[in-house]
Order: sequence, then C-alpha cells, then structure tokens
Amino acid sequence: MSSAAAPENPRPVRFGIMGCASIARKLARAMLLAAPAAAVVAVGSRSEGKARLFAADNGLPATTRLHGSYEALLDDPDVDAVYLPLPTSLHVKWATAAAARGKHVLLEKPTALCTADLDAILAACEENGVQFMDSTMWMHHPRTAKMRELLDDRSTIGDVRVINSVFSFRANEDFLHNDIRVKPDLDALGVLGDAGWYCIRAILWAVNYELPRNVIALCDPVKNQAGVLLACGATLYWADGKIATFHCSFLTNLTMDVTVVGTNGTLHVTDFIIPYEEKSGPFSVASESNFAELHTGWVPQPSRHVVTTELPQEALMVQEFCRLVQEIRDGGAGVERKWPGITRKTQIVMDAVKTSIDDGFVSVDVTS
Amino acid sequence: MSSAAAPENPRPVRFGIMGCASIARKLARAMLLAAPAAAVVAVGSRSEGKARLFAADNGLPATTRLHGSYEALLDDPDVDAVYLPLPTSLHVKWATAAAARGKHVLLEKPTALCTADLDAILAACEENGVQFMDSTMWMHHPRTAKMRELLDDRSTIGDVRVINSVFSFRANEDFLHNDIRVKPDLDALGVLGDAGWYCIRAILWAVNYELPRNVIALCDPVKNQAGVLLACGATLYWADGKIATFHCSFLTNLTMDVTVVGTNGTLHVTDFIIPYEEKSGPFSVASESNFAELHTGWVPQPSRHVVTTELPQEALMVQEFCRLVQEIRDGGAGVERKWPGITRKTQIVMDAVKTSIDDGFVSVDVTS
Repeated sequence: MSSAAAPENPRPVRFGIMGCASIARKLARAMLLAAPAAAVVAVGSRSEGKARLFAADNGLPATTRLHGSYEALLDDPDVDAVYLPLPTSLHVKWATAAAARGKHVLLEKPTALCTADLDAILAACEENGVQFMDSTMWMHHPRTAKMRELLDDRSTIGDVRVINSVFSFRANEDFLHNDIRVKPDLDALGVLGDAGWYCIRAILWAVNYELPRNVIALCDPVKNQAGVLLACGATLYWADGKIATFHCSFLTNLTMDVTVVGTNGTLHVTDFIIPYEEKSGPFSVASESNFAELHTGWVPQPSRHVVTTELPQEALMVQEFCRLVQEIRDGGAGVERKWPGITRKTQIVMDAVKTSIDDGFVSVDVTS
Repeated sequence: MSSAAAPENPRPVRFGIMGCASIARKLARAMLLAAPAAAVVAVGSRSEGKARLFAADNGLPATTRLHGSYEALLDDPDVDAVYLPLPTSLHVKWATAAAARGKHVLLEKPTALCTADLDAILAACEENGVQFMDSTMWMHHPRTAKMRELLDDRSTIGDVRVINSVFSFRANEDFLHNDIRVKPDLDALGVLGDAGWYCIRAILWAVNYELPRNVIALCDPVKNQAGVLLACGATLYWADGKIATFHCSFLTNLTMDVTVVGTNGTLHVTDFIIPYEEKSGPFSVASESNFAELHTGWVPQPSRHVVTTELPQEALMVQEFCRLVQEIRDGGAGVERKWPGITRKTQIVMDAVKTSIDDGFVSVDVTS
C-alpha cells in the first residue's frame, strides 16, 4: 500500500491521543495493532493523572508522554498526528488548533456541529498541509471494499435505486442521563450525529458519494428534555429518482442495517458498523433474482459472503491514515482530499436533516 | 386444527376457480395439495376453451366442470367456494355476485380498488353468511406464526418501534407493457396494490394490526404513461411513536424484506412473501444485543432460525380457508371475522397511501 514517494521502511507516525474518552481506548489499541506504521507517543487530557491512568489502562509504552492539557499535547514537537475524540462542540477549536501546530488530524465523528465548523477545520488542515480523516472505522474494513467492488460492477447490482439504513442501540439509563451524546452543550446533534452519521455515510457510500437533491426528515423524532435527539430519521431524494431512508435511535435494540436495492441486484449487510466478529464481515448479495416456476421459490438464491481480516477495521483505518501522513511527512506529497471530501458530504447531509427536523419536517435542499 | 363444531372427516370444500390468471395455476396446485380439505370441482373462464386448457395444464381431475362464463360458474350448485383472481377492477362485481350466490370467497389481492368497494364485498359476505379471506399466502406459513410468537414474547423483541419493508421485483418489458398490473382500467393501484399490499400487510402484522395514525407517501413515485404506479413508498406513523417505512417497485431486483426493530430485539426476514425454498423459511432474531468489550463485536450475536413446512404456504392457506368454510357449512358456525378484519385494515392503509400520493405527499389521517 505504500506509495512510490514514501520510503520503504517509513518511520512510524507518532500519535498523540487528545482526550481520554471511552472510544479512545479502542483507538489506542488500534494504534498498537497498527504498528509499525503507528506509535502512540503521547496522551493529553485535562489532567496529567487522567492521562497516566489512560496510558496504564490501555497498555501504552512506559515512554508515553503524559500531558495535563490539550495545549501541552499540541506543543509536543515529537507528535506528528493527533487523534481527537473530544465532545463535538470542542472539535472546531481543537482540530483547528492541532492543524495550526502542524499536527495531522484523525477526528472522531460527528466531525462538527455544522458544515461551517467543519469547513473551518478542513481549511486549517489545508492551510497547514496536514492530513484530515474522520474516524469512521467501517470504511476501512476489507468487506467494505469488497461490497464497493460489487456495487461498481454494474452487472451485479445495476443502478442503485433504493437504500435503507438503520443504526440503533439501546442506551442504558446512565447513558441517557449522563453521556455527552445527550448533552446539548457537548454533542448537540445527539443521536443524529452519533448513529445517524453512520447511516448517512452508508447511504452516500452506496451511491458513490453523489449528494442527494433534498432531504425530508421523518416526523415524530424523540428528544430528551434538553431537546437533544434520541431517535430520528429522514428520507433522501436524488434528482434521478434514487431514494434512501434511514432511522437512528438510542432507544432500540442494537441494529446496523444497510440494504441497497438496484435494478439488477440487492445487497444486505446487518452489522455494517461493527461486524459481529472482529475478524470477519458477512454480507449477502442477490443478483438477477427471479421467481421459481409458479413462484414457489427464488432462482438464484442470494449468495452469502464473508470477508476476513487479520487486523480489525480500526487498525486498518489507522494504517491508512498513517500511509497518507507518511507520504506527506516523508515523501513530500500533498494532503489527500478524498477522505475530507467524504466527511464534508456526510456533514452537509446531516446539516440538511437537522434543518428539516428543526423546521418541521420540510424538504431541505442539499447544496455543497 | 378442526374445531369441535366440525365433523371428524369433513367433506372437501368444493372450489370453483373463477378466472384463469397466471396466479390461479399456483392456487390450483395448492388446492390439489390441500386435499382432502379442498377439491377443485369447476373452472370458470370467459370461454369454455380457456377453462379446458387451464384444467388440462394444471392436472385438474377429468371430472372438473368447465364453465364458459363466470355467471355459469356461480350458478353451479356443487361449488362451495370460489377462488377469484380476476383483475382488481372486477373484484367488487364478482365477489359480491359470488357471495350473493352463497359461495365462500377466497379473493386475490389487492382485494379492491378502495375501501368502499371492499366494504361492499365484505357486507355481501356477511349478509350471505359466507367466509371471506384474501389470498395473502405468507400469512399462513408456519414461519409467520413462529415470528409472531417471538414478537408477542415481550422479552425477545420488546416494544416494536421501527419497521421497514421492501418488496420489489424487476418486471420485464412484456410485463411493463401488457400485464394487468400496469393497466389503469384493470389494476389501477399498480405496484401499490400488488407489491405494496404485502409491505403494508407485513407492517400491520408486525404491530398486531394496530392502524397507524397517519401516513405520508414518499415523494417521486414512478408512474407509467397511463399514470399507473410502478414504484412508490410511504412512511406510517402511530400515535405512540412507532414508525414504519416501505418501498415497493416493479423496477428493481427481487427483494422481500421485513425488518422489525424493538426496544429489546430485532427481527430480519428477507424472503417474507415467497421463501427462498418452498419447504423452509429462514429468519434471524437479535435480542438484548450488546457491544462486545471495546465495541469489537456483538454479544450475543443474532440467531438464525429455519421453520420447515411439509405443505407450501398457499396449500396451508387453502386448508385454513377450508376449515372455516367447513365449520360454517357443516358445523353451523358463523363467519370468522379475523381475516376480513385484517384485509380491511390493509386496504384502509393502502387507500391512505394512494391519497397521499395523489394529493402531493401530504399527511393523510388513517381512519377505520
């Protein structure tokens, strides 16, 4: 995967983990698994004690530098890149600060509260020549690449016409009262930013990132007393007639569906964000499906595929990010714009859905 | 399954098949398989020659009486019940005529062009003490009963909150130009009446036939030049916050999904109308699904179930219809009202969706 511009045995990308959120534990492990491409060299938290505890709990090397503030982490000259899992409301401040210090940015999703904030982050990364990527792990599973292949092979799926996606998990009482994702000052997008992000991304992925023409939110979203979304959905419409619907919720059983229906075939995946098992990802494809004689069955039947992976998807994500950083740091390459572009489209659609909800489920045009 | 009121070895229900549509071939086979509960004793068509050809092609007994008109079939005193697969626009005329002649009515779906027409049919059946049932075969698969059990067991699925259903098949050019389902004078409901019927039924089934409060059709339905629907969908809303979405199409690959997401669990079935194989029906259930430590997988994983059946679902449907007819004919029972009630609710929702489409995708209240 290394480009011609990068040396054969590139130095590891030295990560600073900026904030000790629960999800950072998963990323710390991913960075260890992504060695030698990645190395965790520093942890920054609001207190050095928290950083120390995090490093110890997550098996980070004894040499890991512990910083008692985010500023101190960004001042660390031996940090190439930061992973930033802070509450969404802090993203624009700290991601732009990281970029300004020349740190590459791996940013947890949702990337920003609105596209304008994201644009500030992306502009800062561009100006400082640092790579931006959002931390949407499933994009990096080899299953996703395999499904992409099938979607691109026109004989298998044909023209995509209808997409459904659901992502829900049933949050417990503690989450519903205390998690940052239900707090208006921390993650004001609530479930839309958290679970809805994945549904929107999956839908855009299925149509090769063609933005819809307009979106209309589903009525009757569920909000908590502070007005933060706990369950919602939307329908997305494209000018050529493609239609997608998604629903996301903190209130129903763990469900992770993407169904893509095309003129020639149908793709089903029911664990798209986090595969049932870490080292394998199943999906099923039906193509040119017909009724059997007298409509007593299907010919052919859908086929089931399983794509295995030695490294979990989050480690592959870290490796892909490292590859881009190494090409910039060591190979003189410019920043790669595919991933920031995908992030931005996801955010744009999320903004439109939020606007539709806020304005009473009206149709909202999607403009880039 | 026979009730106390019926004799132990009831005489077969003597069917007249009223119209030689393609689907009637499947039902003729089902009636043969449903022996000794059922017997095909007559076929009525617009010509005796067509009736003769149908009887020969479908292995009906040499004693089958062949009628050259629907009237003649209805005048046949040795016909207990008719199966009526005529174009929808003819249902109200011929189903009421059948009821008036004391024939029990197994009616192909969609049952009518509108609820008022269906009500005329149901009233005729009531007045004449004949059983009514629509021919929605999947309702009678033992898989459906098994899934119902799981939906009713509150610990497995909990409160149903979100339902998605898709039914599409890719019609060929001949179908799109010549099938009765694309002709405004024959099946004016188009894909909504044909494929949408199943989606609406599945959604109502999932909520134990509680009618939604309102429906809003999806925008951008596809119509043919005559204005008949070829692809459409809708969102259904219940007062308590349940939401269902469906999409139906003649233009995309064969797809038959129902996904039911509850507070405790999730049900997936991807061949709900016609199982992949005639003698078995698969589905999967996830219950109390959690993320594995560090969100690296699912604990527990969904479980896959397969329900087998000796007889295909359409034969089981015929047997159920025969059981009710025998209880009336031989046991002095009154007509059974569960099946007509389910039919009526399906039709009511379909009407509301059609109105929403016709009126520009507005919200339409659902009233019984």
